[in-house]
Amino acid sequence: MEKRQHKLTTWQSENNIDMCFIQSKENIFYLSNVYSDPHERLTGLFFFKNTEPIFICPKMEVEQVKDAGWENEIIGYGDEQNPWELIQKHIATNQKVDKIEKIAIEKEVTTYSRYESLLQISSAHCEIVEVDQLMNELRVIKDEHEIYIMQHAAELADYGVEVGISCLREGITEMEVLAKIEYELKKKGIREMSFSTMVLFGENSGQPHGNPGLRKLKKGDFVLFDLGVIVDGYCSDITRTVVYKSYTEKQKEIYDIVLKAQMAALSNSQPGTRIGDLDIIARQIITEAGFGNYYPHRLGHGLGINVHEFPSMNENNNHTLKKGMVYTIEPGVYLPDIGGVRIEDDVLITDEGYRTLTQFTKEFTVIS
Amino acid sequence: MEKRQHKLTTWQSENNIDMCFIQSKENIFYLSNVYSDPHERLTGLFFFKNTEPIFICPKMEVEQVKDAGWENEIIGYGDEQNPWELIQKHIATNQKVDKIEKIAIEKEVTTYSRYESLLQISSAHCEIVEVDQLMNELRVIKDEHEIYIMQHAAELADYGVEVGISCLREGITEMEVLAKIEYELKKKGIREMSFSTMVLFGENSGQPHGNPGLRKLKKGDFVLFDLGVIVDGYCSDITRTVVYKSYTEKQKEIYDIVLKAQMAALSNSQPGTRIGDLDIIARQIITEAGFGNYYPHRLGHGLGINVHEFPSMNENNNHTLKKGMVYTIEPGVYLPDIGGVRIEDDVLITDEGYRTLTQFTKEFTVIS
Repeated sequence: MEKRQHKLTTWQSENNIDMCFIQSKENIFYLSNVYSDPHERLTGLFFFKNTEPIFICPKMEVEQVKDAGWENEIIGYGDEQNPWELIQKHIATNQKVDKIEKIAIEKEVTTYSRYESLLQISSAHCEIVEVDQLMNELRVIKDEHEIYIMQHAAELADYGVEVGISCLREGITEMEVLAKIEYELKKKGIREMSFSTMVLFGENSGQPHGNPGLRKLKKGDFVLFDLGVIVDGYCSDITRTVVYKSYTEKQKEIYDIVLKAQMAALSNSQPGTRIGDLDIIARQIITEAGFGNYYPHRLGHGLGINVHEFPSMNENNNHTLKKGMVYTIEPGVYLPDIGGVRIEDDVLITDEGYRTLTQFTKEFTVIS
Repeated sequence: MEKRQHKLTTWQSENNIDMCFIQSKENIFYLSNVYSDPHERLTGLFFFKNTEPIFICPKMEVEQVKDAGWENEIIGYGDEQNPWELIQKHIATNQKVDKIEKIAIEKEVTTYSRYESLLQISSAHCEIVEVDQLMNELRVIKDEHEIYIMQHAAELADYGVEVGISCLREGITEMEVLAKIEYELKKKGIREMSFSTMVLFGENSGQPHGNPGLRKLKKGDFVLFDLGVIVDGYCSDITRTVVYKSYTEKQKEIYDIVLKAQMAALSNSQPGTRIGDLDIIARQIITEAGFGNYYPHRLGHGLGINVHEFPSMNENNNHTLKKGMVYTIEPGVYLPDIGGVRIEDDVLITDEGYRTLTQFTKEFTVIS
């Protein structure tokens, strides 16, 4: 944590930023190890140029902040207090805090309302700059400890698919399968899934963002699982598609194409590759097979504390892959009546290539 | 939906607002019946002074928007496109759209980054005003259909507590109980809980925002359940506390005080009551009993599409209760070693008083 905070404050000094305001739960966690969801209440870190940072949070969370290892000042406020007034007082009374004339904020997540509050505690004509890019650059390279946790999260995602497949039987509903998957994961101590688990049968799988419901499983259905878990603050995300009992040639055809596209993007995953090229490589395979119009989304997304984070794996992304990056590769083909296939792995860039954190088989599987 | 949109556009005309930008998933749902979580992608509604509104969303969600009943223009964009450029083009080419000189936004949720994008598609010196208060005022009064759904959500929350209590046995972990509750609810078709379910044993219940884990149940523990479900977009939220097998006088004492405080706030729930007074009434009872320092949060919060929404039930709130409001009453006392008690109901204001949507018993209960 200290190393991460040091990188932030070094950047802050270099850019002559009087105050840096961090308030997303993800960046707070990354910089302080405090994992908390305060809903609409303010929880935030304020870093100053020449003095120690402060942590502000609801009074009832002060102990948890201390327990997480925060050693600098904590301002705890009650529901009846205005936290911004307390910050203003801190700035006014701490002689080491300069006049606030330049503030760095998380532009992508800080609300307009909080921006207005910041203006009130700063000098007139205060300049606002963004800290998002720096945070992205810090967070995009995972350290050994983060990779260790994410590996564990990925193994539990594999297990989730295994549970899901093991309970398929004629007439079971999407929601029953989904409930069973989450039940088994939660029994293992998982508190939260990375996102709403998806189990989609038949034509429902033909919607890339479909909603599981009471659709019953029948012979010949695609079964698409898309799920992930949060372990110690880090997400996993896996998609697998199988067929139930029987299949048509068309189903096998689109499965093979999606798998081929996914494998092609994987095998080009190595330090130095332009990110956009991965999307292009996969998309080309699907397009050449005649299904380009049925693949309406990007190749994937960065993965870490957020389930969708930097970088976006789309064709326009000119960044290059670096060792320690973790992202998803998840091409798909969705046919309205027949259903869809998506295959997704979590990929870690290594010294010379990649390895997938998710390991569940991708062989075309017919559940009997 | 049309009625709700009409109220918004009437307000917009009265205040001479050229464009109103709605982008929170909750307000989009309220105004359009489209329920979607686009993560970092832009999904939004643009209302104009003299012409039809537009709906903008990722290309792959266009069908879902149509299915939800949206009959005006939809702009669908691919991951490789900049949606703001498409909006700018719409504004530039639609002759009925005035120059954009005054924009209403959701100040509490619109990010600084989106504010910057808005500035780029509007006139120089564009004025920004907030639509949050109007949306709060619209959403705070629930109509019959909303109450019908919320009643159902509350019944399922009651059921969640029932499931939780039914599986208590010596040595079971908090996570096992939690998993069982969610499993049974999801089997009934519930896709998402209102928030991370809490099951806390013994001293863990002494933290108002504790984290369930692998703590095992033992004789003499408090067991605190705090949970809710989302039904058709609307949340429920219930807390019950029981004791397992045996209890001390101290445990009974704080239970009785919390229940007394909760009942006092309930019985003062009627049209015309100042909201802050409910908090004061409950807090006074707890303070007079000597536990004021162990009740570190407000009385409750509004409930609806968000699990925490307007109004905040704190002592400074000068608004008065009106028929159709739904909110929680949830006082608590948390003793570090012994554990805590919180009792929470979802309350609906009726013509002359109130009724609780949650109905699970609040009698002091010893599980044998």
